[in-house]
Amino acid sequence: MLQINETHDPALRSWIASANDPLTDFPLQNLPFAVFRRVGSAEVWRIGVAIGDQVLDLTHALCVDGLPDLKESSLLAACRQSTLNDLMSLGLPAWSALRLGLSRALREGSACAYVLMDALVAQSAVEYALPAHIGDYTDFYTSIHHATHVGALFRPDNPLLPNYKWVPIGYHGRVSSIGVSGQQFVRPLGQTFPAGATEPVFGPAARMDYELELGVFIGKGNAPGQRIALDQVDQHVFGLCLLNDWSARDIQAWEYQPLGPFLAKNFATTISPWVITLEALVPFRQPWTRAEGDPQPMAYLDSPLHRDTGAMGISLEVGIRTAEMRRAGLPAQCLGRSRFEQSYWSIAQMVAHHTVNGCNLRAGDLLGSGTQSGPQSHEAGSLLELTRGGQQPLTLANGEVRTFLQDGDEVSLRGRCQANGAVSIGFGVCSGTLLPPLP
Amino acid sequence: MLQINETHDPALRSWIASANDPLTDFPLQNLPFAVFRRVGSAEVWRIGVAIGDQVLDLTHALCVDGLPDLKESSLLAACRQSTLNDLMSLGLPAWSALRLGLSRALREGSACAYVLMDALVAQSAVEYALPAHIGDYTDFYTSIHHATHVGALFRPDNPLLPNYKWVPIGYHGRVSSIGVSGQQFVRPLGQTFPAGATEPVFGPAARMDYELELGVFIGKGNAPGQRIALDQVDQHVFGLCLLNDWSARDIQAWEYQPLGPFLAKNFATTISPWVITLEALVPFRQPWTRAEGDPQPMAYLDSPLHRDTGAMGISLEVGIRTAEMRRAGLPAQCLGRSRFEQSYWSIAQMVAHHTVNGCNLRAGDLLGSGTQSGPQSHEAGSLLELTRGGQQPLTLANGEVRTFLQDGDEVSLRGRCQANGAVSIGFGVCSGTLLPPLP
Repeated sequence: MLQINETHDPALRSWIASANDPLTDFPLQNLPFAVFRRVGSAEVWRIGVAIGDQVLDLTHALCVDGLPDLKESSLLAACRQSTLNDLMSLGLPAWSALRLGLSRALREGSACAYVLMDALVAQSAVEYALPAHIGDYTDFYTSIHHATHVGALFRPDNPLLPNYKWVPIGYHGRVSSIGVSGQQFVRPLGQTFPAGATEPVFGPAARMDYELELGVFIGKGNAPGQRIALDQVDQHVFGLCLLNDWSARDIQAWEYQPLGPFLAKNFATTISPWVITLEALVPFRQPWTRAEGDPQPMAYLDSPLHRDTGAMGISLEVGIRTAEMRRAGLPAQCLGRSRFEQSYWSIAQMVAHHTVNGCNLRAGDLLGSGTQSGPQSHEAGSLLELTRGGQQPLTLANGEVRTFLQDGDEVSLRGRCQANGAVSIGFGVCSGTLLPPLP
Repeated sequence: MLQINETHDPALRSWIASANDPLTDFPLQNLPFAVFRRVGSAEVWRIGVAIGDQVLDLTHALCVDGLPDLKESSLLAACRQSTLNDLMSLGLPAWSALRLGLSRALREGSACAYVLMDALVAQSAVEYALPAHIGDYTDFYTSIHHATHVGALFRPDNPLLPNYKWVPIGYHGRVSSIGVSGQQFVRPLGQTFPAGATEPVFGPAARMDYELELGVFIGKGNAPGQRIALDQVDQHVFGLCLLNDWSARDIQAWEYQPLGPFLAKNFATTISPWVITLEALVPFRQPWTRAEGDPQPMAYLDSPLHRDTGAMGISLEVGIRTAEMRRAGLPAQCLGRSRFEQSYWSIAQMVAHHTVNGCNLRAGDLLGSGTQSGPQSHEAGSLLELTRGGQQPLTLANGEVRTFLQDGDEVSLRGRCQANGAVSIGFGVCSGTLLPPLP
């Protein structure tokens, strides 16, 4: 079982100075994984660990014997791959051993500091690949506030469907168009049915939106026909990232009945490069509760352990930087904030539900949490909610107005965890840019 | 452009006698591809070509210089792989060259017959793997008869939704649980909401069903943001197989709003091992038409060439063999037949629509056609339709009764093409068996 251990000790400091900055996303207590190489190089992609403003090159670190605590040959081999899949498939004991070895090697007083210095690369000098080969991508719908807000726009008479409080609703997404932070994509073309029209029209989508989500990378999978029980999920989830499920709302409204969103979402999905391990997130686990009057979850979605620790405190925010803001040298402007602990369904419930029918998950599979929104209007994870379906335009600080995204808009997601007695950790950034449609 | 050529000549005969049987699915004019090895062996999976009741082992055939017409090194390398992905990615000119080389080597009078004999393995002595690494699986909903019949059960007041005649409706499916013919899977557990209940219940799905579909394997993909135009689709589709989209109707009815089917379908999908190339199917192309009163398709879904040759004449059938029938030595019983040329949307329209928003397809991606049903009640591709949602039980020839599938039922799909002046070709078989739920 995942528990607080020496790697979470808030007194630990790293010999890499930038990791001790209280504002860094990547202190010694985080140690997330990515796949990277030097910008513009033709190097083989390799696995890195974020520490302060640096990346520790795991292949290099093992080469110079800089992680002497690691002995297991399968773990050592997995750390030298070009994706995280092998590491993900090893399971929690291996992940914990690696985390402990990294923590000891990177903390003040480590005997490895000298040899590891050469294995560091500045984050500003690297580019990232997708952290894993993703076999399947499933997107959930876990925020009841988002489901209610959006449901009211699509179905004013029936915002929250009767199954919502029983079923962790999910659907399959598109893998081929998932990109890592920095992704640029053209505005999609498609069929829409404008208000007042008598038949559908074809052209560039007009109601382009982002969705502020968390991504969940599966580590150890399950065999076909087998289930992952709620209390076993921590053994199977490798870690979390940020995820932007770009959406074309006008295409979605016309196509989504009866089989769900398709072209409205499958043109692009952006994730952050860094995968925050579940072990790093232990200090931010919270009791999981239901509001009075909500139905008790079915047995496969409920347990005493889950009630104690099923929720996770993660603050999320989304910012926009328009082409005009970039020209004027203005920074991104925050559009909305929300908290993952307000999600109606937890990560463990997502995984237990996904496999309850025997559906097999594989190492590297990605689950999205669905858009995370809070109950208040400024806590929305999408423009659809912030502008009430485009009815209430937003005026940005520089005077620009938005109902939906304009060509050139860059959207960035961030996430951060804070808790008493714990060092704060963050997710880095997940950004992407909407380009004009092709002629 | 795909056209009739010497490989389709009905006068051609093979030096492999079983390929000249008018009832074989695999005459010299077919030449489909699969991935196989000898049953129970630990051989590396390799690419094979069906000819009569034999499999031509491509790796072996190249080893003994049995396909002398093939010169291109990328094509030769692709034929020696353990999946079809490399071959699929090469595109139509390479596929055509390979087909021509195979046709010449396997026809009567071929100088290669002697050396190729050793490269043949009886189909009865082999087992199959999935023909390709499948990156993404998309299921469409192209049969208007199926959509209408099923819509009437789920939404009696509103069977065919307003978008159906405009949008080739599709959704993303699950890749991890796709298996090749012979797949066995346990009855899924899940949430359902039985008629008359006051809240949902949990247990084994009671309304298990098959879906009679075609699968479409993408060959050459498209770059993100680029589209595949309707008249270019033949350059991008490698071939077709049979596909059974197993469904748990009671799970589906409770979960599918608002994001579509999820656990109701992602526990298993079975495809046939043999991929019939688009070139082999040229003699069975037909004009594509719309009924009077149906809307004209949008420009990206319409062209003169498509109107001339967009449809494809494929007869499909589904059979059942229960555990009791197996014990009694009875053969499978046909449950329903339908014809793919009655589909409302064509393969070219599926691909053009899928990519019109810039969604990138990759070699090995799989598209399902959706359940193929005809207008008549005996032409249904699912039990849901045949038994009108379980209201009208079927009595089998041996006296057993079915509304939905029982544990131990084996379902087999078959497909066959016939046309004047052409040798008939078939798809082989796609079978799978429902096992009891795990305790």
